[in-house]
Amino acid sequence: MSKQELEVVGQNATCCQGLAGAPLDEERASELAKVFKALGDPVRLRLLSMIASREGGEVCVCEMTPAFDLSQPTISHHLKLLRQAGLIDCERRGTWVYYWVLPGALDRLAAFLTTPRTTGVPA
Amino acid sequence: MSKQELEVVGQNATCCQGLAGAPLDEERASELAKVFKALGDPVRLRLLSMIASREGGEVCVCEMTPAFDLSQPTISHHLKLLRQAGLIDCERRGTWVYYWVLPGALDRLAAFLTTPRTTGVPA
Repeated sequence: MSKQELEVVGQNATCCQGLAGAPLDEERASELAKVFKALGDPVRLRLLSMIASREGGEVCVCEMTPAFDLSQPTISHHLKLLRQAGLIDCERRGTWVYYWVLPGALDRLAAFLTTPRTTGVPA
Repeated sequence: MSKQELEVVGQNATCCQGLAGAPLDEERASELAKVFKALGDPVRLRLLSMIASREGGEVCVCEMTPAFDLSQPTISHHLKLLRQAGLIDCERRGTWVYYWVLPGALDRLAAFLTTPRTTGVPA
């Protein structure tokens, strides 16, 4: 499958400075907003969590669909959005498609959110 | 201002287990999706970054508006969504409203995303 969509949380997006390091420029904000938008849906968060928490690291779409009261095309659409955000990738093997979390994607996003110091808070 | 809206990234939402720890249940997924949805917009990400990166920790809305080609009510609306997600809080002082990042909110979100181990990736 094409790797062109899998650049959003790549090094350019999150290597350099976190959210609290300096004001984000428009381009980076736009890139990162796509990733957070992909996470901003309960079904997609549950799908990502099912994949990320799986021992062995990959999950067949056929195992995910029964956990939801949604059609398989709808589940596949949500998985596509997670893939376009650079969070997961997949491979077809025979009848089924298998998904895994892209290495480092979640940790890079976590690093982006981590504050380097305690933010001052008025009393 | 009411604190009722500021519970989303509180301890209940993110203390217990990260995204990769175990599959998320529907309730937590729904809570957390609201936070990520708030982050899923370039203007809100830039606003949050302006606040989080500010030495001293708080920013007047009057300093944020000039950085955007948007009206002040629009900026205020975006700030309200960040506040409802439990990421920032604010206080009116005279004419202006001042914003700061809620302590720990970003770090808790980062901890939620951090993977406890390397996720297996097929060759």
